Amino acid sequence: MKIAIDAMGGDFAPFEIIKGVEIARDRYKDIEFQLYGTEGEVKPLIQNWERIELIPTTEVIAMGDEPVKAMRRKKDSSMVRAAMAVKAGRADALFSAGNTGALLSSAIFLVGRIKGVDRPALATALPSFGGKYDHFVFMDLGANADSKPVHLYQYGILGSFYASHVLKIDEPSVRLLNNGAEEDKGDEVHKTAHQLMKNSPSFNFLGNIEARDLLDGTADVVVADGFSGNAALKATEGTALMMLKQIKQSILAAGLRGKIGGALLKPAFKEVQKKLDYNEAGGAVILGTKAPVVKTHGSAKATAVANTMGQIKIMVDTQLIPDIQQYINAHTEELRAGNDALSEQTND
Amino acid sequence: MKIAIDAMGGDFAPFEIIKGVEIARDRYKDIEFQLYGTEGEVKPLIQNWERIELIPTTEVIAMGDEPVKAMRRKKDSSMVRAAMAVKAGRADALFSAGNTGALLSSAIFLVGRIKGVDRPALATALPSFGGKYDHFVFMDLGANADSKPVHLYQYGILGSFYASHVLKIDEPSVRLLNNGAEEDKGDEVHKTAHQLMKNSPSFNFLGNIEARDLLDGTADVVVADGFSGNAALKATEGTALMMLKQIKQSILAAGLRGKIGGALLKPAFKEVQKKLDYNEAGGAVILGTKAPVVKTHGSAKATAVANTMGQIKIMVDTQLIPDIQQYINAHTEELRAGNDALSEQTND
Repeated sequence: MKIAIDAMGGDFAPFEIIKGVEIARDRYKDIEFQLYGTEGEVKPLIQNWERIELIPTTEVIAMGDEPVKAMRRKKDSSMVRAAMAVKAGRADALFSAGNTGALLSSAIFLVGRIKGVDRPALATALPSFGGKYDHFVFMDLGANADSKPVHLYQYGILGSFYASHVLKIDEPSVRLLNNGAEEDKGDEVHKTAHQLMKNSPSFNFLGNIEARDLLDGTADVVVADGFSGNAALKATEGTALMMLKQIKQSILAAGLRGKIGGALLKPAFKEVQKKLDYNEAGGAVILGTKAPVVKTHGSAKATAVANTMGQIKIMVDTQLIPDIQQYINAHTEELRAGNDALSEQTND
Repeated sequence: MKIAIDAMGGDFAPFEIIKGVEIARDRYKDIEFQLYGTEGEVKPLIQNWERIELIPTTEVIAMGDEPVKAMRRKKDSSMVRAAMAVKAGRADALFSAGNTGALLSSAIFLVGRIKGVDRPALATALPSFGGKYDHFVFMDLGANADSKPVHLYQYGILGSFYASHVLKIDEPSVRLLNNGAEEDKGDEVHKTAHQLMKNSPSFNFLGNIEARDLLDGTADVVVADGFSGNAALKATEGTALMMLKQIKQSILAAGLRGKIGGALLKPAFKEVQKKLDYNEAGGAVILGTKAPVVKTHGSAKATAVANTMGQIKIMVDTQLIPDIQQYINAHTEELRAGNDALSEQTND
């Protein structure tokens, strides 16, 4: 398989991207890597050209660039050229650690939506601390600020496929992030989405989940509107970081006692920190496009980049996209019927 | 001053409520307590009747009751009777640890909205770990699932008054919880709210804040729509609890080493846990009603109940409600103008 790589996106690009690609090349023998990037910067970094091809580009989309504009104007940027390669069928998947909005735009407008999917969404695997499996799928992380009930419903389908194919979870359960467990909770969008999901034969819906229970492992897929999904994810990250920092400070303030205690508990802290650091395990995936598009954190180092290549390999190997496409093709009528019933119910 | 108390609401009512009231009675010499509750249950618990009056009621609103229905039908419930006392001017404030939705309904429909406030909202003081002050005001926590821009704008006013009067913060700064720092971020509601708040002379607006930075103390008031505010608060609580649990488990799993390290660090952990346990400091306040209405956690014990009485005392002593009322009366034209300008901009 071939992966098109935006070698210039990310805080430590191209250095950490190239280093990660070389680790992945040595690890996965069936992947060919197409690097899109500025020749003068990328070429000197490559140590071994086995299964690595460099396609020189002249522009770079910066982290602060306005996403849609950047995607439209910087036609010879590493990101756009990599996306065009996927669109043309010269590569099977797209990878970037760059501007998230621009990558979303490239995914939707260049790689293209799967027919029948209204809004591709950002998904990631988060650690689960109580469930049967180590991880669960959380989406949308913020691709769509204004979500409609039918989008949330479609996320349930996309997330279920990702959970079964990539996380190897049989008949994944799905919950809807809402502000209460009862089915009449939430705003109009979530009330309607709940009814739509409840009646769906497409996945195993278990009802609402509150953000308090997000990491408890009570569902294999948690579907959220992009706005509150983003808020819940960021609140989780922020709280975890803040607590580690606070505990560190309290340990430092406790003098010798803290020093000894801290040293003894270091492995225990490392374990918790490692489990929480979901970015190391792979990237956030844009689900609903015609090929896998995966984004690692802007600050990703080589190991995270290499792990993400493994994640992409699983997506391609397990036929994730063709399987989603086939399911949606076979159920178009049904999905449209659900959508129509919904339009009658609401004025959205 | 007189506080009307729903003695039957909460997981440990009436026992912990009465115990808390007696602590508060001994602590605050100028408060008179009106207890609304089932005579047979409440009377035997009271040890000293000084400044305590029992008004017998025959019904109780349960935690699982449908809020509006319960408020309408259980006219002789401890909560409704306490709310009616405030409405009639026989008490200055309302306290309950019971059904949040029913208390919200009682606050809005019985105690009544301040004229000019469209939607009263739930606010709480959360710990701030980096700012100039120990706490900041976070609202709406979920009173309104469907917020419009003008509601968010009004929360900015209400939250600023609460911060200055109760938290003693001079010229409090206000931020809007959004999915990005730039002013064009978010859905239509948040984009419009941002513009409205940016141009407001009513408070000191510093722009958007992401949920990741919520506890960092970069604002004295953080305004959120009730849906994502609820999600961010619950994600924060859930993550903090989960981390403490995980660290405990890792310590237990580390055998003797963990045991010694854990014992040495116990004071440090306690410190972090104490700062996080914002429920101990007081209750969540419904802002925008004609009198203070305060709700403690359902699982509140006597100390939290007593502390909440202190919080109510500050609200009454500092004239929080009259000051809000006066400000809104004096600025009705201006607020309406902002609202109208907004209606022209959007189709909401």
